[in-house]
Parts: sequence; structure tokens; C-alpha cells
Amino acid sequence: MTIPYLADLKDQTECKTCPKILTRCKGSLYKVILHEFLMTAGAYFGVFLVFRFAINETQREYAAEVFKKLKEQQNVCIPMQMMLAFFIATVADQWEKIFENVGYIENAALAVATFLPDGKEKRDNNGNVILAKVDNSNVRRNIIRYLVLSQILGIRDVSELVKKRFANYDMIKATGVLQDHEEPLLKKVPCKTYAESFVPITWIMSILQKFASKNEENLYYDTVYLEITDFYKKIIKLTRYDLIPIPLAYPQAVFLAVRIYFFFCLFTRQHLDLEENWALSHWGFPLLTTLQFIFLVGCMKVAEILLNPMGQDDENFECNYVMDKNLFVGLTIVSSEHTECPELEEVIGDD
Amino acid sequence: MTIPYLADLKDQTECKTCPKILTRCKGSLYKVILHEFLMTAGAYFGVFLVFRFAINETQREYAAEVFKKLKEQQNVCIPMQMMLAFFIATVADQWEKIFENVGYIENAALAVATFLPDGKEKRDNNGNVILAKVDNSNVRRNIIRYLVLSQILGIRDVSELVKKRFANYDMIKATGVLQDHEEPLLKKVPCKTYAESFVPITWIMSILQKFASKNEENLYYDTVYLEITDFYKKIIKLTRYDLIPIPLAYPQAVFLAVRIYFFFCLFTRQHLDLEENWALSHWGFPLLTTLQFIFLVGCMKVAEILLNPMGQDDENFECNYVMDKNLFVGLTIVSSEHTECPELEEVIGDD
Amino acid sequence: MTIPYLADLKDQTECKTCPKILTRCKGSLYKVILHEFLMTAGAYFGVFLVFRFAINETQREYAAEVFKKLKEQQNVCIPMQMMLAFFIATVADQWEKIFENVGYIENAALAVATFLPDGKEKRDNNGNVILAKVDNSNVRRNIIRYLVLSQILGIRDVSELVKKRFANYDMIKATGVLQDHEEPLLKKVPCKTYAESFVPITWIMSILQKFASKNEENLYYDTVYLEITDFYKKIIKLTRYDLIPIPLAYPQAVFLAVRIYFFFCLFTRQHLDLEENWALSHWGFPLLTTLQFIFLVGCMKVAEILLNPMGQDDENFECNYVMDKNLFVGLTIVSSEHTECPELEEVIGDD
Amino acid sequence: MTIPYLADLKDQTECKTCPKILTRCKGSLYKVILHEFLMTAGAYFGVFLVFRFAINETQREYAAEVFKKLKEQQNVCIPMQMMLAFFIATVADQWEKIFENVGYIENAALAVATFLPDGKEKRDNNGNVILAKVDNSNVRRNIIRYLVLSQILGIRDVSELVKKRFANYDMIKATGVLQDHEEPLLKKVPCKTYAESFVPITWIMSILQKFASKNEENLYYDTVYLEITDFYKKIIKLTRYDLIPIPLAYPQAVFLAVRIYFFFCLFTRQHLDLEENWALSHWGFPLLTTLQFIFLVGCMKVAEILLNPMGQDDENFECNYVMDKNLFVGLTIVSSEHTECPELEEVIGDD
Amino acid sequence: MTIPYLADLKDQTECKTCPKILTRCKGSLYKVILHEFLMTAGAYFGVFLVFRFAINETQREYAAEVFKKLKEQQNVCIPMQMMLAFFIATVADQWEKIFENVGYIENAALAVATFLPDGKEKRDNNGNVILAKVDNSNVRRNIIRYLVLSQILGIRDVSELVKKRFANYDMIKATGVLQDHEEPLLKKVPCKTYAESFVPITWIMSILQKFASKNEENLYYDTVYLEITDFYKKIIKLTRYDLIPIPLAYPQAVFLAVRIYFFFCLFTRQHLDLEENWALSHWGFPLLTTLQFIFLVGCMKVAEILLNPMGQDDENFECNYVMDKNLFVGLTIVSSEHTECPELEEVIGDD
Repeated sequence: MTIPYLADLKDQTECKTCPKILTRCKGSLYKVILHEFLMTAGAYFGVFLVFRFAINETQREYAAEVFKKLKEQQNVCIPMQMMLAFFIATVADQWEKIFENVGYIENAALAVATFLPDGKEKRDNNGNVILAKVDNSNVRRNIIRYLVLSQILGIRDVSELVKKRFANYDMIKATGVLQDHEEPLLKKVPCKTYAESFVPITWIMSILQKFASKNEENLYYDTVYLEITDFYKKIIKLTRYDLIPIPLAYPQAVFLAVRIYFFFCLFTRQHLDLEENWALSHWGFPLLTTLQFIFLVGCMKVAEILLNPMGQDDENFECNYVMDKNLFVGLTIVSSEHTECPELEEVIGDD
Repeated sequence: MTIPYLADLKDQTECKTCPKILTRCKGSLYKVILHEFLMTAGAYFGVFLVFRFAINETQREYAAEVFKKLKEQQNVCIPMQMMLAFFIATVADQWEKIFENVGYIENAALAVATFLPDGKEKRDNNGNVILAKVDNSNVRRNIIRYLVLSQILGIRDVSELVKKRFANYDMIKATGVLQDHEEPLLKKVPCKTYAESFVPITWIMSILQKFASKNEENLYYDTVYLEITDFYKKIIKLTRYDLIPIPLAYPQAVFLAVRIYFFFCLFTRQHLDLEENWALSHWGFPLLTTLQFIFLVGCMKVAEILLNPMGQDDENFECNYVMDKNLFVGLTIVSSEHTECPELEEVIGDD
Repeated sequence: MTIPYLADLKDQTECKTCPKILTRCKGSLYKVILHEFLMTAGAYFGVFLVFRFAINETQREYAAEVFKKLKEQQNVCIPMQMMLAFFIATVADQWEKIFENVGYIENAALAVATFLPDGKEKRDNNGNVILAKVDNSNVRRNIIRYLVLSQILGIRDVSELVKKRFANYDMIKATGVLQDHEEPLLKKVPCKTYAESFVPITWIMSILQKFASKNEENLYYDTVYLEITDFYKKIIKLTRYDLIPIPLAYPQAVFLAVRIYFFFCLFTRQHLDLEENWALSHWGFPLLTTLQFIFLVGCMKVAEILLNPMGQDDENFECNYVMDKNLFVGLTIVSSEHTECPELEEVIGDD
Repeated sequence: MTIPYLADLKDQTECKTCPKILTRCKGSLYKVILHEFLMTAGAYFGVFLVFRFAINETQREYAAEVFKKLKEQQNVCIPMQMMLAFFIATVADQWEKIFENVGYIENAALAVATFLPDGKEKRDNNGNVILAKVDNSNVRRNIIRYLVLSQILGIRDVSELVKKRFANYDMIKATGVLQDHEEPLLKKVPCKTYAESFVPITWIMSILQKFASKNEENLYYDTVYLEITDFYKKIIKLTRYDLIPIPLAYPQAVFLAVRIYFFFCLFTRQHLDLEENWALSHWGFPLLTTLQFIFLVGCMKVAEILLNPMGQDDENFECNYVMDKNLFVGLTIVSSEHTECPELEEVIGDD
Repeated sequence: MTIPYLADLKDQTECKTCPKILTRCKGSLYKVILHEFLMTAGAYFGVFLVFRFAINETQREYAAEVFKKLKEQQNVCIPMQMMLAFFIATVADQWEKIFENVGYIENAALAVATFLPDGKEKRDNNGNVILAKVDNSNVRRNIIRYLVLSQILGIRDVSELVKKRFANYDMIKATGVLQDHEEPLLKKVPCKTYAESFVPITWIMSILQKFASKNEENLYYDTVYLEITDFYKKIIKLTRYDLIPIPLAYPQAVFLAVRIYFFFCLFTRQHLDLEENWALSHWGFPLLTTLQFIFLVGCMKVAEILLNPMGQDDENFECNYVMDKNLFVGLTIVSSEHTECPELEEVIGDD
């Protein structure tokens, strides 16, 4: 699940917040770049050792000259920094849109609870009951269940963690979101390559139709319809962001540039002048290159996280959490027992 | 509360506005960076003293050489400025979205006032009263109260100041927004980890249902529903921005870069050549480095403020103010006494 | 009022447009920077004179050395240009949103005109008039008046020019937008710190309610409601942009950077080598520094204008114009006489 | 009309597309900068000739020194490139919003066609016709005509080409969009300074009212209202973008910077060292300066085009085309003859 | 079809993902730049050979001097990198908007399925059937068919691949989306230059009218209308993005800058000093220039792809896939057999 770190920033006039946020570990910069950093550092010291011990003086001089030439051109020819900055801006924009399309069920559930109430008793002019009171709470609960089912079926194509948890119908049935007699109906729909997430929504619509034909005076049928399709639209949109990502060549160009840049750093940031003070050469170069690596590869990792917020990292959206919450909150909202309004007592207006 | 400083900018052809805005203190640049500036300045002079007095000539020369090497690389390797600029652009974008989701109650209250009017007296053909006039103002006031209650329950997870003021149910009851007999109902809902802000909204919906079943001819029930869920949607959205912030690694990379940069400045901006004119060395370097510190750490602080607009700084949204205003304005709008329309007199069209 | 200059750009293949747009004076670049430019130029020549005539040779040499040191660091340490560019991008974004929330009354007036028509004569089966034709045009005119009144009450907290024109209730009454018997009602509402702009809207809602209870068959009551609250929402939003501006520290950091930069230019752009050709020193430096001043302080002024579009500059939104227009157009749209549809004659479809 | 060039980009794996797009002439880069380029080139060679032949050696040396000084400072002091890049980003953003507000009539026409159908014959219980079938197609055609009329009246204040074509009422009448007996009604409305585009919309609303009072069972009156006001809102918005452009000082600062930069290039890019190889001096400088001129003045021209998309250039929106299309498509959609649904035959679902 | 590569990014804490994404071939960076790279490399070695072998020493020296001069100016005068970065940001923004307007039929189909149900049997008070049950599934299927037909007619003007597949009416009829008796009706509408995509929508509206006049109690007619026009609006918008692209001069300026830059690289990146070590000259320069070519021409190609997402590249939207999916999913949703709701069993609320 994404790491909510904002609490650390609550009072930034004091100096304490900054160390706090910089030293968080879960989902941190340090964690995401650790592997690549170790590999790159290893390679650097490999080159270091080869340069110092494995080759002879002539080769070393020759190599040093090549490295110097590369160094001159490196910053001009690999425009990594600007490409990375603009790329992050673009994917951050898209990330925010994806984030807005994670579907929360509250509104759909409120619409269902409000506009599909329990049926009122109806009497004719003589006082005879012509329509008994109907408890519709089970209908409402089923609608919530189908909404969550549709979300699971749609999002498991997108999110690794959801796919793992709901790999097949049996795993969905284990949570009670799908029932035994519904599985064959789901399988009957001849979707081979298209997601079957629309099927539970059609079931809900079919429930709505039956409901509307019974309670003919209900005028707010379309509000329920709109809230439910609004929930469903977000499922479709999430899927589309996965299907049609930013054209592959763009992240490839950016990520390749960063890697190539640091590949050249393996050579160009070596301390070439062996005569010089050992401590100096030890100090100056690898330290700042290390920092540059941390910042820029860190930013690249941020771009990767933003590009695919549905992965299984610490930083990614925890869709499973969203679904559990949707099922729980949805069922609570539509159940009559928890949401009965309390007695209305007098409110004094002057505050 | 955020500092409304725009009035200072009202007439900028004159030169006076600029000094005015630059010398504001509350919530200012100077205040947010003061602590860090003092600490950094202290460290700088510590290094200064050590460099001049605590170490011998050889060490000093060696250190000077190291510092020079660092200085050469510093600006290339720590791409702080660009990272910071793009980061601010991204969080400013998000800040504006958060800002748009601070919920003001006016529209919901207007819908409640307009579409849940006092019940009209109804008579049958013989003039007998079959439905007495009903004063619904208490119902409307309770709806407003529940809206504010939902906002409190939702936002206290997000805003430090609201959390402080409404830490538990007793503190909410003290303001009259929650009543004694409602607390157990709120506790009964088995929300362990999810915010219970949806519960008062379900109460409102339950009121609406009862209302609708009494006044059957009311066609505008769904408009009230929409305005209320619109208010609630904003509460949810605010919460989500707190739950799913920009991935941690991004601010970490940026904030770390700024701090590391100025950490190196402690050394690289020292005046190394002791032979030189003392006054010169005193003048030139620390002054401009100080300014750089003010601008860049200032910008970093801006990024922190924008990243978490719900903190307890001078600059943050004063959510408590919003809630007080919502309660007051909401109750005024739905009360019949203040909002009765005056006599309509003739308006002359030609202006 | 904002200067509509786009007509000058209509045919830019010809070279004439550019001189035209560059030589406009009202609301121009030149006008906004004039004061600051004169002050800065004065200071520059002050430093110039002191450097040449008021100090002795030793002091001059010493000063020259200090200036040189400052010059080296100036461009690195004061990252004015990038900060300014990103800041303008951010405020331009916000400016556009403010601009979209300047409320024009056309749509609300059309809804009022369409859905609150004059009452139709109704007859029973025997041809007796049971409901006389009602002229509702006065009701509609009052609704328009209240909309404009709400806009005045809301926007005068935000716009200097509106505040000047409508400083108190008497000044509003002078334009006929507020009537004598309404002032006490407005004062009765106990708003001390909150804007009373919501009061006229509640009056409109109260009119709508009465109207709806008379014309029971009217189904479009909610469309009128939506258009009116849409108009009102824009008033609230405009107010909020003034209450919660971009955190103060951001413009402070940017504006301070620009000013500090040019403060240093007073010294660093002096011609230091007195031996050199006088004409040369006269030519080269101040000219380009002047241009730099024009472009960058010009951009800073643009940022100030964009940050506060409700000021009293040439460039700011003329809210008074908008309100006059709203009153006139609104009253015209709802009056029956001007907007009666002409005879419908045959239209030939083939074009 | 804007040049639709995207077809040239359809298959960019092949190398042919690029030459195609780069060699288009209509509305191209080359065309928009041609005039300015010729003037600037002329001035350059004027300076060239004066520098070589009109002045003596001393003057030449003196000039050369001045030019060198200017050259050193030019790139630092005239931050043209960054200003231009950010300015284009800002206006491109606004351009897209203007582009979204060019009103296409399809949706309004579909609403009119669907919800204002021909009146159905109605019979009482005895089979007597109590309401004859009514052909409403003329009503619908007039609504379309008024929509286009409103668009013409609104947009002619904004677009040069529309102003040229519809300079007065007679020119509008010539196209049949305005009829003779409507002109006096339009003139009667006392709009002196405000656009009269709202008048035809009030006529449509008046038609709708009459229609609604005849066909009382029509529930979808508000959908028609919404589509029509949606069309009208876009007309208003387009007008506003013209009235309240980006503050004048911003484009002035940017355009001035570009021009001043190239004004200095007239001098600083001269080949100063006359001793040097003639061919060399001939080659090196003017060629790259020419390219720089093409790219940067080209970008400035793009900014001008984006800033005012309603001009009469090749690149601007062809509003006249839009209006012709609106009239034709609108009338076709509302005519019964072309849009009668064909016989519905069986569709086989399996695809 | 666009390449969905995000799955490769699912777990980026491990180092494996990066190689995976960088080595994808279909739709990759390498593929899009291959042609241009080979051509440029060929030209480079042509110049290389001419410089070394075809010209004499004097010419070579002269050329070397020219090349050096060009090299000095190249990076200042061709501001390719910044132009490219901002251009990509602008087109990426537009690309996302186009992407949001690819029309998926689910919502329209759900509205049709929900609000145009099979007709219910109606009986009078004596139990006699006065309205037989009507199977409307064929009506619904035809509506879906017309929606897809409208999409085909609209998008084939925009997308190369759709144009290829549906070049004429016969090819559309082959898929069953158009039927024989409908072709003449389509041809009868006198659209010469405007797309006929609105015609099938008018047919649907005509079906809706007939349906509404039969089932008079249907209140949700406007919801169906809105979903269908929403689908149609997206078709229109897609077409407009093709008709009114970003002004031609902008991509021309940017693409020309990139190409001119690398044209100069053919000369300026030659290894000029023939005395130097051959291996060195062989190593240093072409390698980094090659990388620069890959990154920058790669970015330019990304801009081209983003500018025209409807082409026939690997990276472009596969509109044909969308249409097939729309037809299949749409028909499934509206068919009664697949979407009948299963039995509702008890759901247990506690999760």
C-alpha cells in the first residue's frame, strides 16, 4: 500500500520533520534504488580494480585518454536530466488521473440505499393491505456485491496484487463476492479476449428493471443508474490506462538515457591520475557521483512507480484494500440496521 | 489560516506594493526557513573556525584541495534546482485540486432549504384540513448538523488542527454537532480502520426517504441528494489525497538533494585562500550563499507546504474555520426566519 | 479593464502587427515597470557617481574586487530566471481558473425566462376562468436583481474597484440593485465575518418555492435551481481564490530573488575598468542590463498581475463592467417585450 | 482554415513522412516568417556593408570592440529562449480551451429533433380527432436557424473572417439566416456595447415555452434547454477569451525579447576579423544565425498564432466553415425526411 | 495496437524489469528510429570517407576550420533540446485528451438495456390483455449496430487502419454493421464534404421517439438520449482533433531543428585531427553522437506518435479492435439471454 507520510510534514516550522521524512524506510528512495546501486557500485569498483591492477601502464594511459574524451562529451550528448524532468511531469499528470479513477463505492451505495428503500405497505381506500411491506435489503446487498465483483473482474487484469488474490473464480467465490450458482452464468457469456466486468453490471440493471416495474411511482431510478455507471466507468477507465499506456518509446528513451549515462560514469568518473594524493581521489569523485546516482536513478524510479501505480511495490495503490473497504462500507451503508436515522432533537441555530 | 496577502498587490503600478508583500512576516518565507537557516549558519561558522584555527597548515591545504574538487563537481552532480522546480510544479497542481475539494456547505444548504420546504396545509374539496402545515425547519437544521459532523469525522484524519480540536466524540459533542443519543449509534457501526464519516450521510438519506414518503408530490428529491453527495464526495476526496500522496521517493529525492547541496556548501563555499584580503573573503562568499540558501530552501519549504496543506502552519488551510463557517452559514440558510424573501417591488429594467 | 489587444494579431503574415502590439501603451509592459525602472536607474547612477568620484583610488580598487567576486557568483547563486518561469506557469494556470469563474448571468437569466413564464389562463370545462393570466415579469426581474446583488456582495470583498464603487449599502441602493426595505433584512442576518452574499440567493429560493407551489405542474423547477446555484458557485469560488492564495512564501521567494538580483546588478554591472575607453563602458553594460531588467522585471510584473487579477490596474478584470452588463442583459432577457419570438416563416433547408 | 497535416504522419516508421511534413508550404513555418526574415537579412547585410566599406579602420576597431562586449552579455541578459518556451506552453494550453469551445451544432440539433417531434394525432374515446397531427419541422428548422444566427452575432466580434463575411444585418440576411421581419426586432433590443447574440436564444426559449404549453405531456423540455444553452455557453466563452486575453505585458515582454535579441545579432554575429579567410567568415556565422532565426522567430510566430486562433491566417480556425456546416448539418438533422429510421431487420448477435 | 508494456514494470524493486522493458522490440524506440539512424550513419561515413580520402590536405584543413566554427555555434544556435521537451509536453497533453475520446460503448449499451426493456404485458381491470408482451431485443440490437456504424463512418476519416478496412459501404456491409436496405438511405443524405456519421444517430433518435410514444410511462428516455449523445460527442471530438491539429508551424520548427542539428553533426562530430590516435578518434566521438541521436531522434519520434495517435504504427490506437469490441460487448449487453440476473441469495454483511 502507498505509504502515507504526510503526517510527518504537519509542522514544518520546526526542523524535526525533515529528518523524519528523510529517514523513513518503507517505500523510500533508498529501498527502490538499493539493488541498482549495489550493482553499479560493484561495476565501478570492478573497473577501478582493472584500471589500476589488471592493465599495464600503456593501456592505462590509453584508457585514460579515452575516458577523458568521453567525459567531455557526456553531459552535452546525454540530455538525461531534462528528459527525465519532463517525463516525470508527464507521468505524474497521468498518475493523478489514474488515482482519480480508483473507484470508491460510497456514492453508489448511498444511491442504492436512498432510492431503493424497503417497500412501503399500501392500503386501498377500505384499509385493506394491497401491497405488503417488502424488505429490500437483500436486493441492495446483492447490488453492492455485484459492484465489487465487477471491480474485481476489471481490476485483476490491471493490478498484479489483485490478480494474485483473485486468480480464478474459485478464489473470488472464497470471499463470498461470487456465489456458486452465478459462476456458470458468468462463464456462459462468450468473452474470450474482453474483460467480463460488464456482466455483473448488466445483472444490476436487470435488478433495477424488476424493481422499477414493481414500484412504479419511483422517479429516481435514473439517479441510481447514474451512480452505478459512474462507478463502472471508473473501472473501465483504469483498465484503459493499462491497455494504452504512454507510447513505449518514450520511457525507453528516458530510462535508456539514464542507464547509459551512469554506464559511462563507470569510466569517466574514475580517478585517472594515479600520481595524485590517494585520499583526494578517494574522496572527491565517487562521493558526488554516488549522490548523483541516488538523485537521478531515484527520480527514474519515481517515474517507473508513477507510470505503473498498480504494481506490487510498497508505493503502489493497494487495490485489495480498496476492494475490502468497498465491500464492507457498501454493505454497511445499504443495511437498514446501521443507518437508521437517530431521533431528531432540536438544534440551536446560534453557534 | 492561510495568509490572504493579495490585497497588497492591488495596485502594482506604484512601487509600494512590493515592499509591503516582501516585508509581511506571518506565514512568510523568513519564518519558514528561520530554524534551518540558523542551524546551517552555525554549522558554516563551525567549519569556518575549525578550518582556520583547529587544524594545522598541512591539514588545511589538504582540506582546501578536497573542497575545491567537491566544488567543481557540485553543480553538475546535484541537479537540485531543476528537480525542485519541476517538483513544485507537480505539487502546486495537486495543491490546487485539494483546495478545490475543501467543502463549503452553501450549495447543499440551499438545496435543503429550497426542496425540503415547510409542509403546506392541504384541504379536501370541502375545505377540511387533511394535512396540517408542518414546520420542517428542525429537519433541515439536523441535516446541516449531520453534514458538518460528517466533515469533522472525515477531515480529522487528515488535518492536524481538526484532530486536535475534535480528538474524540466528547469534544465533538461539546460543540453541539453531535448529540448524546447519537454517539452510541455512531459507535455501533463496526468501522475499525475505515473512517466513519459516511454514517451521518446515511442518516441524512434516511431522513430524505421519510420526507419523500410524506410529501409524495416532491419531484426534486434527487437534486437534494446530488448536492449532499457532492458535499460528501469532497470529504472523501480530501481523505484520499492524504492516503495516497505522491510516492514518497519523489519528495525524498528532492528534499535530500537540496539538503545535501547545502551540506556541501558548508565546505565548498568557505573562503579557502587565507592570504587574501580578509574583508573580501568575508564579503563575497557567505552573502551570496546565504541568498541562495534563502531562495532554494525557501522554495523547498513552499513545496512542503503545498505537499501537505492540512498541517498546522500559518500557511495551511484552516479547516476549523471552514467548519465553523459551514455550521453557521448552513443553519442560517435553512432557517425560515432569516431567508424569507422581502416584498417584491417593481424593478425598472432600463439601467 | 483588461486590454483586448488580440485584434492587433489578426493578420500576422504581414509585419505590421508586431510593431502595433509592441507599441501599445495602455496596460503595457512599459507602464507597469516604469516606476521601478526609474528608481533602479537612479540607484545605478548613484553607485556610478560614488564609485567614480566619491571614493579614493584604494577604495575603488577594493570595491572593484568585491564587485568582481559578486559577479562570478551572482548567476549561479540567484536562480531567478527558472524560479520566475515556473512561478508564472503556476499562476497563469490559476489565473485561467479565476477567469473561468467570473460569473456571466446569461444562462441563469435564460433559465428564469424559460421556466418561470407568465402564468397561463386556465378555464374549467364550462369555460369559466379559474386562474387568471398572471404577469410574472416582475418576479423574474427581481430574481435578476438579487443575482446581481449577490455578486456585488461577494465580489466587493475581492475586487478593489468593486469595493470602491459599492463600499456600503447606500452606494448599492443608489444603483437600484438593493431596495430600501431590503436593507434591514440584509442587516438582520448575523454575519459578522462571513460574506452575506448568500442572503439574496436564499431570497431567490424562497421566490422559487412560492412560484412552484402556485404552478404545480411545473417540472423544470430544478433546472432554474441549478443555473442559479451555478451562478452563485462561481461567486463563492472567486472569493475563495482570494482567501486561499498560493502560499505567501512562494511569491516572496520569487519576487525577492528578482529584486536581489538587480540589487547586485547595481554593483556588478558597473564598468569597473576606468582606463578603458569611456564610450565602450558607456555602451556595453547598462544597455544590456537595462534590457534584462525590462524582460525580467516585466515578467515579474506579469506574475503579479496574474496573481491578483482583481486589482485596479489597467490589466485587471473590470468586475464593475461585468456587473453592469449582467444587470442590463439579465433584465433584457427576462422581460417579455424584447424577447418575444418573431413569426416563424418557412426555412429552406438546402443551403 | 487550419491545415490538417496529420495524414502525413500516418506511417512514420518509413522515412518519407518527415520530408513530406517539412516541405508543406501552406500555413508553414516558412511562410509565417518569410517577411520578417527578409527584413532582418536585409538589415544584416546593411550592417555588413557599413561595417566593411562605409567606416574607416578606427571606427571599425571601435565598433568591433563594442560588438564583442555586447556578444559576451547577450545570451545571459536576454533570456529569450526560456521565456518563449514557457510562453508557448501557456498559450498552447489556452488555445486548446478555445478550440474546445468552437460550437458544433450536432448535439443541439439532435435534442431538437428528438424531443420536439411532430405532434401525434389524438383521439377521444369515441375516436374523434381532438388534436390533429402537427408538422413541427418548420419550428425545428427555425430553432436551428436561430442557433446559427446567435453564433454569427457572437463570433463576428471575435473572428476577422466572420466579421468580413457578416459585417452587417444585410449580409446575414443574404444567407437566409436572418429574415426581413426579424431585423427590426433585433434592432429594437437596446444593446449598444454588448453583443446581441443572446437575442435569438431568447426567441428559441420563447418557442420552447409555446411548444411546451401545447404538448403538455412532454417531459424532456429541459434536455432541449440544456443542449441549447450548452451551445450558447460556448459562444459566450469564445467571446470572453477575446475580451480577456493573457495580460498584454506578457506577450509584449516575450515578443520584445525575441526581437531585441535578433536586433543585437545584426551586430554581434557579424564577422569582425577581416583578416580571416573570407570563405570562413562567410560560412560560419550567418548560416547558424539564420537557422536560429528560423527556429526562434518561428516559435514566436507559433505563439502568435496560438494566442489568436481567430485571425485570418492559413493556420486559424475557419469559423465560416463551421457556420456553414452547422447550418447544413443542423437543418438535415431536424428534417423528418432524411432522418426517418429504416426498417429494423434482425441483427445476429454473434460476431 | 498500442503495446501494453506496463506488466514489465510490476515489481521494480528487483532489477529485472528494466532490462525487460529496454529490450522489448515491438513498438520500441529502436524500431522507430532504425531507418533514420541507418541513413544518418551512412551519411556520416560518407562525409568521413570524403574528408579523409577524397580531398587534399589544403581542402581538409579548410574544411576542418569550417567544422570547428560550426561546432562552436551549434549548441547555442539550435535550441533543439528545450524546444523538443516543451513540444512533447504539449502534444502529450493533447494525446491524453484524444485517448479519453476513444468511444467505448458499454455505457450507451447499459442505458439502452436498462431503459428500453421488453414491453410488459398490460391488462385492463377485467384481466384482458390490452398490451401484449413485446420483445424489444431486436430494437436494442439495432441501436447498438447504428452506434458502431456511426463510429465507423466518423473514425474512418481519421484513422488510416479504419479507412483501409472500411474504405466503402460494401466493406462495411460485409461485417453486417450496415444492411443492404440502409445504404441508399445513407447515400440520399446530401453530405458532400461533411462526414455522414450523424445519420445513424438520427435513426436511433427516430427509434427512441417511436418507442417513447408506445411506452408512455417511460420517464428515463432522456438518460438513454444522454448516453447515446455522449458516445456520439466523442466521435465528433476525435474527428475535430484531426481537423484542427496544433498549428503546422510548431512541429515543423521542432522537427526541422532536430534534423538540422544532426545534419550539422555529420560534419562537426567528425574526428578532425588525423594525427591523433586512430582508436581514440574511432571511440570517442561517433559513440556518444550515436547515443545522442538515439535519445533525441527517439524523443522526436515519440512526439510524432503522440501527435498522430491514429496512424498505422505499432504504437497507435487500434481503432479496429475498439470497434470489434464495441459491437460484441454492445450486442451482449443488450441481449436478454446473457444478462438476465441470477437468483438473489442471502448475502452476509459481515466481512
